[in-house]
Amino acid sequence: MTSRSSLSPLRVLGIDPGLTRCGVGVVDVAPDRSAQLVHVGVVRSDPGEPIEVRLALIATGLRAVIEAHRPDVVAVERVFAQHNRQTVMGTAQASGIALLVAGERGLPAATHTPSEVKAAITGYGSADKRQVQTMVARVLRLDALPQPADAADALALALCHAWRGGATVAAASGPLTPAQRAWADAERLSRR
Amino acid sequence: MTSRSSLSPLRVLGIDPGLTRCGVGVVDVAPDRSAQLVHVGVVRSDPGEPIEVRLALIATGLRAVIEAHRPDVVAVERVFAQHNRQTVMGTAQASGIALLVAGERGLPAATHTPSEVKAAITGYGSADKRQVQTMVARVLRLDALPQPADAADALALALCHAWRGGATVAAASGPLTPAQRAWADAERLSRR
Repeated sequence: MTSRSSLSPLRVLGIDPGLTRCGVGVVDVAPDRSAQLVHVGVVRSDPGEPIEVRLALIATGLRAVIEAHRPDVVAVERVFAQHNRQTVMGTAQASGIALLVAGERGLPAATHTPSEVKAAITGYGSADKRQVQTMVARVLRLDALPQPADAADALALALCHAWRGGATVAAASGPLTPAQRAWADAERLSRR
Repeated sequence: MTSRSSLSPLRVLGIDPGLTRCGVGVVDVAPDRSAQLVHVGVVRSDPGEPIEVRLALIATGLRAVIEAHRPDVVAVERVFAQHNRQTVMGTAQASGIALLVAGERGLPAATHTPSEVKAAITGYGSADKRQVQTMVARVLRLDALPQPADAADALALALCHAWRGGATVAAASGPLTPAQRAWADAERLSRR
């Protein structure tokens, strides 16, 4: 336990992509799975602006979060084609921007589906939003449910990524940062 | 006619978005609808790279085209959710990057559907690829069909945008460049 607690936590930026509201949540997750809230917020773009301006605003907002909080890895919610055909293309474009800003900074990125997130946080993939939020608040020792809801989803995504073995994803995406390497080693030890 | 031929042409960058191959075509289109080829090419990303790296490569490639050829406006093929579910999300993400690089440079952008492009180029919306390419080659006075095919689609998109009244779209997206303003005026005059 001594060697574990001396390790740097993994800092994960979770992004719940959307054109009008992009939820962002940053958490520090230790190898023992305990977690600390670093930042939570929403990057907005005005629906009255042209699409190219909105995407540029989202990129600027996400880059500012990365600059301020310097995550080790970025986790983005995976978008599916089959639902909400009207808005899904905008959401997919926003998710492309989220992945791009990670790639531009040399950060590894990963995507997780909503049911992977629910399963990782609550133990079952069809949990409702409120159950996920309650669990996120408990894990992060918050006095109230994280607000706004999109930001709560981003926090859940970030926790999910770390708990599902962010180190594995990071290893597939290129060289590890020192924090990621230490985290991967500790994870490996804890599985023995 | 004298006043028209003295106007600057509108320079349009057409982008056929894709993760592995992004077709790019730049054309100068005069108010009398005659057009000149400026650049044609493909921005590639390696399918073996992680998605965040691929999107960053695409952004870098598209920015280089904008830097080299300084278009007045960017036209991007519109992506639909209903077809090719497997690849459509990647194409949508690439289209988000294409719109973003326009927005970051303060360039107006517009999207057109494949049938709008076919109708604008050949006169009917269900023309096949070969008919579109043949028409693009004729309009641009090329000795052979434009190569590769994705780049031909990008040229068709750029021509479509100018011919469908790029000035209208530009006006909706913010202030016009001097070339766009002159073009819009000439278009308005020609409709009288």
